[in-house]
Amino acid sequence: MNQSPPLVPTERTSLKRLPQRGAYDDKTIYSILDEAFICHVGLIFHNEPVVIPMTYGRVENVLYIHGSAASRLLRELANGIPVCVTVTLLDGLVLARSAFHHSMNYRSVVVFGTACAVKDETIKLKALQAISDHVMQGRWSEVRKPNECELRQTLVLELPLVEASAKVRSGPPIDEEKDYCLPVWAGELPISLVSGEPVADPRLLLGIKVPGYIEAVRAQSAAARVP
Amino acid sequence: MNQSPPLVPTERTSLKRLPQRGAYDDKTIYSILDEAFICHVGLIFHNEPVVIPMTYGRVENVLYIHGSAASRLLRELANGIPVCVTVTLLDGLVLARSAFHHSMNYRSVVVFGTACAVKDETIKLKALQAISDHVMQGRWSEVRKPNECELRQTLVLELPLVEASAKVRSGPPIDEEKDYCLPVWAGELPISLVSGEPVADPRLLLGIKVPGYIEAVRAQSAAARVP
Repeated sequence: MNQSPPLVPTERTSLKRLPQRGAYDDKTIYSILDEAFICHVGLIFHNEPVVIPMTYGRVENVLYIHGSAASRLLRELANGIPVCVTVTLLDGLVLARSAFHHSMNYRSVVVFGTACAVKDETIKLKALQAISDHVMQGRWSEVRKPNECELRQTLVLELPLVEASAKVRSGPPIDEEKDYCLPVWAGELPISLVSGEPVADPRLLLGIKVPGYIEAVRAQSAAARVP
Repeated sequence: MNQSPPLVPTERTSLKRLPQRGAYDDKTIYSILDEAFICHVGLIFHNEPVVIPMTYGRVENVLYIHGSAASRLLRELANGIPVCVTVTLLDGLVLARSAFHHSMNYRSVVVFGTACAVKDETIKLKALQAISDHVMQGRWSEVRKPNECELRQTLVLELPLVEASAKVRSGPPIDEEKDYCLPVWAGELPISLVSGEPVADPRLLLGIKVPGYIEAVRAQSAAARVP
């Protein structure tokens, strides 16, 4: 489907340490972005760093984040300032025979760029649908869409996925050769994000069943990497 | 146990929007920090924001993060520069009847401060044990401890938990009154981080069983908030 070439690593996206963990192809980057629910957005506010968790969506090579138009931080972002957006999926605890070689298995993406407010209303609606689809495919078509007043209250920011890199660690611990004879259990404890049983709103109308797309998310999470 | 007063909100930790979601007591803040595995550390590097995922530990009101002494970013941090450390636990997807009122249930902590390198070797070792205990209580006493060379290669940074705040959302969606009659399923899909079956290292010595403290983490995650 996607024929675009790998992103070109820049000074700040190229991994200096453990370069074998780095990946710059959009397939790897997009798959991590599409799987996680939350990103951490870093920006400079009054000369100091601020990191806020946010939901997001992706349309091809554009990342959309959104929030209240009343948010000080988002208004700051809307002016077009440099951001760093990081997404991390924790896959496991890596338990080595030495304290030093303990690690985590994870997949992360770091995106650098300038986030700008989306002004065009058609693109804004598409971005909001992308964010909704990202969290739960199928939901958008069922719910009441944003009205004009709600759209005005919502700030949507776009960040091009141009300067981005992924970092992945998987597999068993790597111990010092002399430590392999230690009588210590070593290996990986897999970790994943799973969903539980849907909890109906106390004011849910009688007779409304849990939709198939929610069951699909549940089934998908049950079949996740946890062996 | 802990008798200290709530932290005093500062200009940047006090919530302007939805202030009812804010918490400044150390019990709430510490419980979120102690439950999560990963923090996102934001700093300014060459005048631009950078956000990196890291593991951490806590000893009373000090947060410790660590990494390779060869890391450019950590060396930058070691000089004592302002950071923002954010920890986010995702608890559920909040599915409203309108697109606009969709949300997430979560617990997050934001810490502002200046991170400094720990020079004292005794404190450094205690900090490394705290990070190990944080990830898996019981592991430290079983594994080979860091030797002098490994300690030199490890940079440990301390960040006082002074300017910090928590933010918590829980419960069902809050819809517009007129939307409660819409025939749309609404409620919460709980989400949590769980662990799978331990995967033994391919080079594990014969006859070494999975230790009880790993089983304890598994049991704890199985009994987690997922109903």
